[in-house]
Amino acid sequence: MDQFSSPIAHSAVVIEDTFWAPRLRTLRERTLFHIYEQMKQLGYFDMYKYDWKPGMRLTPYVFWESDITKWLEAASYSLATHPDPKLEALVDEAIAYLGSIQQPDGYLNFWFTKIEPEKRWTNLRDWHELYCAGHLIEGAVAHFQATGKRTLLDIACRYADLIDSLFGREGGKQRGYCGHEEIELALIKLYKATGEARYLNLARYFIEERGQRPHYFDIEARVRGEDPGEFWARTYEYNQSHVPVREQTEVVGHAVRAMYLYCALADLARELGDESWLRICERFWQHLIPKRTYITGGIGPSRDNEGFTEDYDLPNNTAYAETCAAIGLVLWNHRLLQLDTDRRYADILERTLYNGILSGLALNGEAFYYENPLESQGHHHREPWFRCACCPPNISRLLASLGQYVYSVNDTEIAVHLYMQSTSTLPVGTQQVKLRQETAYPWDGSIRLSIETEQPVQFGLKLRIPGWCHEAHLAVNGEEIPIDQNLHKGYVRIERRWRTGDSIVLDLAMPVQRIRAHPDIRDDAGCVALQRGPLLYCLEAADNAVPLHRLRLPATAELESHFDAELLGGVAVVRGNAAVLETGDWSEDLYRAAPARRRPLTFVAIPYYAWDNRQPGEMRLWIHEDNG
Amino acid sequence: MDQFSSPIAHSAVVIEDTFWAPRLRTLRERTLFHIYEQMKQLGYFDMYKYDWKPGMRLTPYVFWESDITKWLEAASYSLATHPDPKLEALVDEAIAYLGSIQQPDGYLNFWFTKIEPEKRWTNLRDWHELYCAGHLIEGAVAHFQATGKRTLLDIACRYADLIDSLFGREGGKQRGYCGHEEIELALIKLYKATGEARYLNLARYFIEERGQRPHYFDIEARVRGEDPGEFWARTYEYNQSHVPVREQTEVVGHAVRAMYLYCALADLARELGDESWLRICERFWQHLIPKRTYITGGIGPSRDNEGFTEDYDLPNNTAYAETCAAIGLVLWNHRLLQLDTDRRYADILERTLYNGILSGLALNGEAFYYENPLESQGHHHREPWFRCACCPPNISRLLASLGQYVYSVNDTEIAVHLYMQSTSTLPVGTQQVKLRQETAYPWDGSIRLSIETEQPVQFGLKLRIPGWCHEAHLAVNGEEIPIDQNLHKGYVRIERRWRTGDSIVLDLAMPVQRIRAHPDIRDDAGCVALQRGPLLYCLEAADNAVPLHRLRLPATAELESHFDAELLGGVAVVRGNAAVLETGDWSEDLYRAAPARRRPLTFVAIPYYAWDNRQPGEMRLWIHEDNG
Repeated sequence: MDQFSSPIAHSAVVIEDTFWAPRLRTLRERTLFHIYEQMKQLGYFDMYKYDWKPGMRLTPYVFWESDITKWLEAASYSLATHPDPKLEALVDEAIAYLGSIQQPDGYLNFWFTKIEPEKRWTNLRDWHELYCAGHLIEGAVAHFQATGKRTLLDIACRYADLIDSLFGREGGKQRGYCGHEEIELALIKLYKATGEARYLNLARYFIEERGQRPHYFDIEARVRGEDPGEFWARTYEYNQSHVPVREQTEVVGHAVRAMYLYCALADLARELGDESWLRICERFWQHLIPKRTYITGGIGPSRDNEGFTEDYDLPNNTAYAETCAAIGLVLWNHRLLQLDTDRRYADILERTLYNGILSGLALNGEAFYYENPLESQGHHHREPWFRCACCPPNISRLLASLGQYVYSVNDTEIAVHLYMQSTSTLPVGTQQVKLRQETAYPWDGSIRLSIETEQPVQFGLKLRIPGWCHEAHLAVNGEEIPIDQNLHKGYVRIERRWRTGDSIVLDLAMPVQRIRAHPDIRDDAGCVALQRGPLLYCLEAADNAVPLHRLRLPATAELESHFDAELLGGVAVVRGNAAVLETGDWSEDLYRAAPARRRPLTFVAIPYYAWDNRQPGEMRLWIHEDNG
Repeated sequence: MDQFSSPIAHSAVVIEDTFWAPRLRTLRERTLFHIYEQMKQLGYFDMYKYDWKPGMRLTPYVFWESDITKWLEAASYSLATHPDPKLEALVDEAIAYLGSIQQPDGYLNFWFTKIEPEKRWTNLRDWHELYCAGHLIEGAVAHFQATGKRTLLDIACRYADLIDSLFGREGGKQRGYCGHEEIELALIKLYKATGEARYLNLARYFIEERGQRPHYFDIEARVRGEDPGEFWARTYEYNQSHVPVREQTEVVGHAVRAMYLYCALADLARELGDESWLRICERFWQHLIPKRTYITGGIGPSRDNEGFTEDYDLPNNTAYAETCAAIGLVLWNHRLLQLDTDRRYADILERTLYNGILSGLALNGEAFYYENPLESQGHHHREPWFRCACCPPNISRLLASLGQYVYSVNDTEIAVHLYMQSTSTLPVGTQQVKLRQETAYPWDGSIRLSIETEQPVQFGLKLRIPGWCHEAHLAVNGEEIPIDQNLHKGYVRIERRWRTGDSIVLDLAMPVQRIRAHPDIRDDAGCVALQRGPLLYCLEAADNAVPLHRLRLPATAELESHFDAELLGGVAVVRGNAAVLETGDWSEDLYRAAPARRRPLTFVAIPYYAWDNRQPGEMRLWIHEDNG
C-alpha cells in the first residue's frame, strides 16, 4: 500500500460556491428543522416520555431511534461549521431523551426498553438492535467532535462497553452480530475518537464472526422456537452472512448493509495495517463497479431485497437505487481513497454524489427520495417523510459533512479530490496551508487554486484529473505542466516548495458527452446518456412537450450547453436537435411494417439531480438513439 | 348489419395438413389423456367419491370442477371427429361423477356440496360458482352435439333451470351475477342447443344486471359481514362490474373475464338482433386492438390482475398474456366475424391462434404455458400442470374444435377465413358443397381450392386476403381475377354458379417482414419483429450462440427463409446477417463514450409458437435494430 492519507475535517473547508453553498444553507436552515419537526409530529420524542401502550397513536418502528441519532450526527456537523443555539438546544434535548432511557448497565434502545424488554438481544438478525447502537455511536462521535461536549459520547461509551461485555468469542459471551451492519464502522470511529482499543477489537470480532458456522442466526432462531429455514428473506446473502466475509466474492443482498460492511472492512485494513482486508474490498469493488452500478452511482436495483440481483440487471423504470445505498457507496469509496489515492474511487464518489445521492433531496430541502429511478412516467415524487425514514437524515449527515470529501492529506501531500469554490486550511505535516479554489465547477471546468502559507512549505500537491475528462491543461504560476507524464492513478502530482501567491490553473474540458452502457445491460440497449462534467443529464416533460419515449437522438446531433441562472436554482442545460416519432398516421395499427415518421425537435436536458422539482411529468435519463 | 353468417361444425372440416393435423393427432392421442391423468392423480375425481375432510391429500380449488368440464368439452369435440371408445368411457365416467353429486333441486357444484354447502350462493364475486356452471353447460352442449347423448345435457339443463329460478329481477330472486363471466355465453349456447328461450333471457339478465346500483357484490359482501371497500382486487373493474356494461368504454380488468363477457355480448347481438350490443363490442375492440394487444395476440400484460393495465403498456419479459386470455380473444373475434365478415376480426383470430395461443402447448402435447412472454432469460418453461389449471383444457377444447374457425356460411355465401389443407363439406342454403384446400400454409402462401357439388350451385365464395399480405394473386379456373376491385372488408367475393371441377388458385406472397411497434409501446422501442405469413418469429439461444440482447439487426439486412423438415416438427426458419455487440474490450467499464464494437453474425429465427421445445435458453421476439 501507498502511504495512507486522511480526510480533512469537514469544518476545514469553507464552501463558497453557487452550487453547494446554497444547498448547504437550505440544509441548515430548512432540512435539519424539517426532519426534526417530522420526527416530533410522528411522536419520535414522545416515545421517551411515556410508557408505550398498544393503543398509542402510532406504533414506532423498531429502528426509529436510528433516525434520531443520524439526525443528531447531521446536526452536529452543521453546528461545527455554523453554530446555531436554536439547533443546539434541540440537539441537547434529544440527547437528554436518549440518556433518560439508558439503563444502569448501559443498555440504550427505546424499543427493547419500553415495548418489548423481554426480547432484548433475541433477534439480532432482524431487529436492528446493534444497528441502532451503531448510529448512536456515530452520532455521539460527531457531537463530541463538533461541540466538545461529552454528553452523548459518554452515553455511547457506556452502551458500547455493555455490548463489548456481551458479544465476542470469550466464554460467557454470545457469538452474535447484527443483521444490518453498521455498528462495525461505528465502533472503529469510537475507537479513533477515544483511543479505546476494545472498540476496534469488538468491531473486528463482529466482522470476522459474520457467517461462521454454526450460524448465529440459525442458533438464535431456534432459541426463539423458529425454523431457521423459514427466514423471510430466504437467504443469508441478504445480510452478507451466507459465508464468512473473507470467503465472499460477490456483492450480494441488501445494498446499504453491504456498503456499511465494506466501509468497516476498509477501516479495518487501515487501523490494523492489514492489507488482506483491502484485497477483499478490492474484490467487491471489482464486482460491483463494472457489473452492478447505475450510471448515477445508484446501486441495488430491486425493491424485493432493497439490493442486488444479477450482473448487469439495471432496469431504469423500476430502479430501487436507494438514496442510502448510494450514500454507503460514497462512504466506502471515500475510505478506499484514503488507502490508495486512486482516481477510480474518487470518480465513483463524485459521480454518486452529484447524481445518485443529490437526486434524493428536493431543491427546497424538505422532500426526499427513497428510490432513485432513472426513468419515470411521472408518478414518482419526493416525499416529506417515510415510515421507514432512513434516507432523510442520512443524506443530511452526508451533505452537512461535505467538506471532508474535498481533500486528503498526509505528512507530505495534499490530494485534491473534488473541485468546488472554497477556502480551506489544511495540515501538511506540522504546517498549515491555506488553499483556495476559485471555480464555477461543476458548470465550468476551469479551476484556479491559490496557496497561502506563513512560510514556504515543501509538499506534493495531487490534483485529480477526473475520469470523465478527456482533455485537461495544467499550469503552475503560468507555466504549463504536462499532465500525462505526471499522472499517477489519475492524479497529477506537483512537488515543490509552495509559497503564498503560488497559483495553479487546471482546465478540464467539459463538452457534452454521449455515454453508452455495457451491451449486457438490457434496459439501456440502443440508448445514450448525456453527461457534462460530473453531471448526468435527463429529459423531463417540463422542458420537452413530447412523450419522452418517442424522442430519438441522431448519432450526429450537435449538443450544446448553456447556463440558465433562472432555472432550478441555476443549471447548465443541454440542448440539441432530435427527432420525435409521430403517431398520427398509425390510426388503428398497433404494429405495422412502415417505420414511424419522424419530425425534428429541439430537446432540452437538465441535470438528473434536479428532476422532479417542477410540475409532475415523465423523466428519462437514457435516451433512444435514432436508427430510422 | 350485413347478413349474419354461421360457423360450420368443426366436424365438417377434415384437416389434412402437415401443420395442424400432426398437432391435433398429438392432442387426441396424448394431451387429452395427459390432462385426464393429471386430474386423476391430483384427486379431481376422488372429490366425488369421498366426503371431503380438511386432512385430505390436497385441498381442491373452488373452481377445479371447471377443469373437468372443459376437458369434457374438448374430449367431446375430439369424439365427434375421431371416435375413441377408451376416451368415451372416461368421458362417461366423468359425467357420472358429476351427476352423482347433483342435488334434487338440480344444484351441481362439488365445493359447495361437499366442502362448504352452507356458503352456497354467498359469494358470487369470488367463488366461481356460476362460472363453473357455465363450463358445465358448455361441456354438456359439446357432449350432446358430439355423441347425441343427453346424459350431461339433461344434468346441465336441470342446473340451469335451478339457476334461472334463483337469479333475476323478478320478486323472490337474487339480483346476482358471477364475478367471473362465463355462464352468459354458456346459457346462450344452451339456448341454441335446446331452443329454450329462458336460457337466453337469463344470459341477458346476467349481462344487463352487471354493474347496476346498488352493486350486488357490495350487498353480498355486507351479508357476509365484510366491508365491500375491502375487496381484495381493489376495484370492480377487475371483473368488469364497475359500471353497467352498456356504460363501459374501455377494456379493463381480468383479461379472460373480459373476453368471455364480450363473447356473450356478441352472442346477444346476434340472438336478439340487437345491433347496440355489437356497437359496444366494437367500442371494446377499438380500444383493445389498437392499444392493448401484444403482436402475438396475447392480452393482459399484468400478473397482478391477470389483466389489463394502461394503454401501450406491453412489456415483453414480464408479459402475462395468459393462454386462456388469447383463447378468449379468438372466441370473441370468431363471434364478431359471423356478424360482419370483416378481415380485421379474422386477422386477429389467425394471429392469436398461430402465435399467442399455440405457444401455450408444447410440441409433445404434454406441457403448457399459463403465461406467454415475448422475451425470456431462459427460466420460463412449460409445465405439465398447474394448481390453477384453466389453460390446459382450454387450449385443448379450442384446438379440438379448430375446424369451425376455417369457414363461415350463410344461405348464399361461403367465407374462407383460414387456409389449411383440408376437405370440408359445407352447407350453402339447401345444398352441400365439398371444398378442398391444397396448400402448405402457413409455410407457403399458395392455396388451391377445388369444388365438388352434385349439381351446379350458385353462391358467393369469399376469400380472405390476410392483412399481413401485401401482394396476392387470384385465378378461377385459370382466369386471373383482379383482387383490389373485388375486395370488400378484406375478402374477395366471387359469385358464380360453381360446379365440380372448378378450381381457385390464391397466391399470397409470403416474404419475411420487418414489423415495427407503435411508438408508444415503450418496451419495443428501437426493435423490429420478424413475421412471415401469419407467423411471428423469435430468436432462441438454441440457434444463436450469443446473448440475444446483444444482437443488432441492420435495417438493410437481407432476410431469407427456408423450410427445415427436421427442426421442431418441421418449420420454416428465417436467416439473416446481423451484428453482435462485443464486450471483450469493455474491461472494467460499465459505461463509456465509445459505442460497442460489432462483429457480423448470421442469425436464425424460428416461429414463436415453437420456442422452448429444446434446451433451455434465452428467447426474444423483438429484435434490436442496429443504430451503430
